[in-house]
Formats: sequence, C-alpha cells, structure tokens
Amino acid sequence: MSNPSLLILPGDGIGPEVMAEVRKIIDWFGAKRGIAFDVSEDLVGGAAYDKHGTPLHDDTMAKAQEVDAVLLGAVGGPKYDVLDFSVKPERGLLRLRKEMDLFANLRPAQCFDALADFSSLKKDVVAGLDIMIVRELTSGIYFGEPRGIIEEGNERVGINTQRYTESEIDRVARSAFELAMKRGKKLCSMEKANVMESGILWREVVTEVAKDYPEVELSHMYADAGAMQLCRWPKQFDVIVTDNLFGDLLSDAAAMLTGSLGMLPSASLGAPMANGRPKALYEPVHGSAPDIAGQAKANPCACILSFAMALRYSFDLGAEATRLEAAVEKVLADGVRTADLLNEEGITPATTSEMGDAVVAAL
Amino acid sequence: MSNPSLLILPGDGIGPEVMAEVRKIIDWFGAKRGIAFDVSEDLVGGAAYDKHGTPLHDDTMAKAQEVDAVLLGAVGGPKYDVLDFSVKPERGLLRLRKEMDLFANLRPAQCFDALADFSSLKKDVVAGLDIMIVRELTSGIYFGEPRGIIEEGNERVGINTQRYTESEIDRVARSAFELAMKRGKKLCSMEKANVMESGILWREVVTEVAKDYPEVELSHMYADAGAMQLCRWPKQFDVIVTDNLFGDLLSDAAAMLTGSLGMLPSASLGAPMANGRPKALYEPVHGSAPDIAGQAKANPCACILSFAMALRYSFDLGAEATRLEAAVEKVLADGVRTADLLNEEGITPATTSEMGDAVVAAL
Ligand SMILES: CC(C)[C@H](C(=O)O)[C@@H](O)C(=O)O
Ligand SMILES: CC(C)[C@H](C(=O)O)[C@@H](O)C(=O)O
Repeated sequence: MSNPSLLILPGDGIGPEVMAEVRKIIDWFGAKRGIAFDVSEDLVGGAAYDKHGTPLHDDTMAKAQEVDAVLLGAVGGPKYDVLDFSVKPERGLLRLRKEMDLFANLRPAQCFDALADFSSLKKDVVAGLDIMIVRELTSGIYFGEPRGIIEEGNERVGINTQRYTESEIDRVARSAFELAMKRGKKLCSMEKANVMESGILWREVVTEVAKDYPEVELSHMYADAGAMQLCRWPKQFDVIVTDNLFGDLLSDAAAMLTGSLGMLPSASLGAPMANGRPKALYEPVHGSAPDIAGQAKANPCACILSFAMALRYSFDLGAEATRLEAAVEKVLADGVRTADLLNEEGITPATTSEMGDAVVAAL
Repeated sequence: MSNPSLLILPGDGIGPEVMAEVRKIIDWFGAKRGIAFDVSEDLVGGAAYDKHGTPLHDDTMAKAQEVDAVLLGAVGGPKYDVLDFSVKPERGLLRLRKEMDLFANLRPAQCFDALADFSSLKKDVVAGLDIMIVRELTSGIYFGEPRGIIEEGNERVGINTQRYTESEIDRVARSAFELAMKRGKKLCSMEKANVMESGILWREVVTEVAKDYPEVELSHMYADAGAMQLCRWPKQFDVIVTDNLFGDLLSDAAAMLTGSLGMLPSASLGAPMANGRPKALYEPVHGSAPDIAGQAKANPCACILSFAMALRYSFDLGAEATRLEAAVEKVLADGVRTADLLNEEGITPATTSEMGDAVVAAL
C-alpha cells in the first residue's frame, strides 16, 4: 500500500517559514513512528502569482484534488494589494476551498493554560476555554451570484449575494452536530434570522437536522448577540455553527480572545473521497504577517497543530495527534517562547526554528 | 415659535420602563431650563403589532417623518418569534430607519470609569476607552433585492443581496470624516475588500472622500481583522466607519467590551430637513431584555443618554447634553447602581425609577 499523500502549499509571508518547521515534524513521524507521507510541495497565493500570473495554477488545483490532504501556510501581502481582484492571493485560497468543496471549516478557539495571561480578557474569563466554531466555507456571500461592480444610472454599484440552499445548510449542520456529540453535546447556531431570509432558512434547516441528534442541546442566537456573548463569557459555548461571513468575523474574534492567536490551527473538510478520507485542507488561523516575515520571528505552532488536525481528521491517527499536541503544550510549559508569546522585556525570544526544534525534542 | 417636537416610541420589553425615566428628564429640562418639547407618544414593534397587526402603523410612520426627532426604546420579544418575517417587531424599526433614510448610525463605545471593572477585558485595555462606530444603516444586505426564500429544483434557497451605490457610501463616509474632525482625527474603514466587490467599491469611495479631509488619518482594515483588533486593543481606534451588517456585529462587540452595555446610547441620522435639523432617531444600544421586563430592574441610562445625543445632534444643545451626561456620570460615581451595574452580592440595587430620580437629582 502506498503512503498517504500530503500537498504542502507554504504560500506567502511567514507561510514558508512556519511550514519548514512542520517539515521537521513530518520527518520525525516518518523516522520515529513509521508514519510516512508522500509529500509534494507547490505554490499558492502571491508566490503562485509571481511565477504563473495566477494565485493558483490549474496543475496545483488538480494535485490538491488528488492528494489525501493539503497543508497550507498563509496567503497575501501588501505587495499584492494593487492586483486586480481576480488574481489577488486570496483568490487562490478561495478557489481551493470552493473546488475541493470544503464546506466545514473547523476552528477551535482554545486558550492554552500557559498563555491565559496574553488575552486582553480577564484570566477567569478565558482560562480553560475550549470551543469549536464550525464555519460554512463554500457558499454564502463569498461565492453567491450576481456579484461585481456595475454601472447604474451615473454611478457604480457594488453587489454581492448571500445564497444558501437547504442542502448546503444541512451538511454543515450535520458536521457540527457530529462534533458536538464527541464534545460537550451543546450546539449554538448563529445567524440574523430577524433581518435576513437566508438566516430564517438557516435556522429552519438546523432545527430540522437537530431531530437526528436528540442528545445535543441546540440553541439559536443572532450573530450580533453572538459576537457580544463571545466577548462577555465565551465559556457558555461548546460548538458554534454559522455561515461563511459570520464565521469569518466570529472565529477571528474568538481566536483573538483566547490570547493564543499564534497557536490556533484550522481544518477545512469536504465530503469523503473514494478511500473514505474527507477532502481536507489544514491551515493556521493567523495570516501571512508581512510585518514579521523573513525575520525568523514567526510562531510555527499554529501550523504544527494544523498538521495535528490532519493526523486526526484525515488519517485517523487521533493518538498521534494528541501526542503532537501534548508536545506543543510541553514546550510552552517549559517556557520556550517565540516573540508573540512574550510580554516581558529582556527575555530573548526563541526563533521560528528553535521553536520547531523544541517541539521535535518534546516528541 | 413652536417648541421642537419629539416622538416617543417606547416599544417592547423594558422599552416603556426606561422611557418613563427619560420623561422625567424631559420634564426637568422644560421646568428648570426652559427647554420645552412637544412630546407625542406612539407604538412600535410588538406593541404596535398587538394593537394594529403591524409593527409600525402608517400613521406612526407619517408622524415620525414630521417630528424633529424620534426617541425609541426597544423592540422584540419571544412572544413574537412565531410571527411571519414581514410583521416581526424588528420590521417596524427597520421601516423607520429606511423610510426616514437614517443612513448614519452613530454608536459610541465608551467605557465609564466607574464601570471599567465590569468589562470581561482587563482594566488597562478598556479604561478610558472612547471610540465612535459609524454604521451605514439604510442599505447593504439589510435591504438589498432580490431577497427571500425561493424554490429551486427540489429544495429551498435563502437569498439576500448586499448592494451599495457610490453615493450611499459617500454620504456615510462624509459623516464619519466630519465626526473624526471633531474628535481624534483618525478614521478606520472596515470591509472585506479581499472577498467582496461591494467592499472594493466601499474602499475606493472612502479613499476618494478622504481627499476632502486631508487632516484625518485614514486607514483600512478587513472586518475580520477589525473584530480581532477591537478585542485586542480597542484604544487604537478613534472613529470606525463600516457597512450595515459588519456594523451590527462590530458595534455590539465593542459595546460589550466596554462593560457599559446598559449605558450606551445611539443616534441614527439622515439628511437635513427644511428646518436644518437632520432626520433623527435615538435609541439605546441594548435590546428589549424580555428576561427582566416588568421587574423594575432595567437601567434607564442608555435611553437617557440617547436623549442627550438628541440634545446635541438634533437641537444643537451641546452644553445641555454635556450637563446631562455629567449628571449620569455623577450618579455612577455616587454608587447608585441598577442590578446590571453590580457584581457584589448583598447590595440592594436601585430600581429603574430610583436610577432615573437620581439622575434628575444630579441635574
Ligand atoms: C484570506 C481570506 C480570504 C480568508 C477569508 O475571508 O475567509 C481569511 O480571513 C480566513 O478567515 O481564512
Ligand atoms: C433589532 C435588529 C433589527 C437590529 C439590527 O440588526 O440592526 C439591532 O440588532 C441593532 O443593531 O439595532
């Protein structure tokens, strides 16, 4: 049997730097645990644009469709701000999500004990926090038609369309209920059903799916109230399910609140392939951080933990994922810190590569 | 010359309770400062539905168009959840905003010194915070067509449309720049120009308007990063301008972060009327709070401070507005607290009416 395949797309900014550390982890699993992957690497985002004039080459797209999992660093940077919308770095990422049909974006918002002090929130509000946001990722206003900037009368009009079908809502809701079953059995669905008809349909379908999960306690919240409650007392939540755009804002806010932004991974999952594995893309929640790129300052943990999610969700290696997560926690507890995890002056921060080495050592 | 006119729409839940306290303030200004208003009162939201079968009667709408300012309490409640979308309490409020063309929603997110401890954020992150969010209020996905739930193939599809014209963006941007000129001369505009064409147009128009305000330092931020930064270090902002939907979430999150949710007012302003005053509606940021309605627990300060905003923005009585705001601050400093402003057991909270009386006494 051939090894499972992994496509690595480092992307832009700090993407390649953090991905180099993930490589060390992958090598360790091959050498020490006999878990080998067929790893290939390619370009995405600005890096792909620089070489091919497009943020995602068709060949790369085809490769992504074939592999067992994709691991992505980050895309974007000020250099590309002037580019036309259609070739901006982000379009490469959005194309991957759409064409691989990765409808369920899992974003854990977890507060690492060693980092609770880093939150702008009070320690008791965030210590021990562990929630999971499930964001719909292939539909909604990100992709709905019509869209664009048109002329009307003597002025321009910017248009985007939020569009959700019942089946799109149904499948992401099921993913969220399944996760809730494995966790605290509580699910909160967020929309603006008081203002948007797409929110009404969202609420109806989620309520319908709930019948198949009688053990899960379902609640509904308007997304604005959800934003408030995340800021006030995030521990009231277990799993949250919401649409693409609300999920973008709410999961970023939740990630920042934990104080662990440089630590947070994500998984984007689609339907099962012929081999039973879901289509999958893993990426850190943080962006390409152009301000610190090339300075060996980036924290590789979010990308390393994204690989842990790959072990769990794509390769059914939950125990190995837990091993890797424990190694990261140990490194934190030992006080190894990249610059983003330090708030005192006078301590020399670990470099990106020192942090990666420390995780390998802890393994 | 006739007195300026004020239409009071107490609405639902705690709306009527907090409005009763504003009445005391209005009476005080008439009796002690010779500032008299022609006050009329009418129904909105669930209260209007109960009487007329519609959340806003045409006669009320007509009255709102004629008066100098509208003061609204809050709308909505679980009792109305079963109603059809078209007659839900919220539609009354949305109709007022739309037909009065109240395009600029001013939402101060201010942390009252006496309340900094109530925030879930660390004290140094919020103490002294004073930012102003300007939210576009009459367009975007709240009102764009097409919208609705349609049948397509064998399933239903929920549709809403985000739609912004150049002139809609231009006018709200100008309001925000004007405010920035009177404040810290910093404006941050938030959208998702990396994903939405309507965001691209938004950014272009705001950048164009900036040429008329060379003294204001303009920055742009993606709305998800904006949500993060509000949670991380809100004091980096002075004025924020954003669209209807992003403004809904971001202003609620910002309000909650201050710890002063029960204290925060808002103003919704439109174009100048024949008498030079802007069309205007004032309302507290908080909702109808059905859980505490009818128990004399509600904090009337947000509604009282909304009246202060009316004095400032509709009646050019800035000094009187400041007087009223100072009275509210004095009451807080004196330790008079409704239940929402107390976190210790054993202290008897002030009732809604005691709080109102205390503000009158402080005046
Ligand atoms: C880079 C951008 C297109 C993307 C999004 O808006 O989805 C990012 O913010 C995210 O959340 O993954
Ligand atoms: C009540 C509701 C329609 C309203 C909105 O979504 O605008 C409210 O949340 C607000 O922010 O004023």
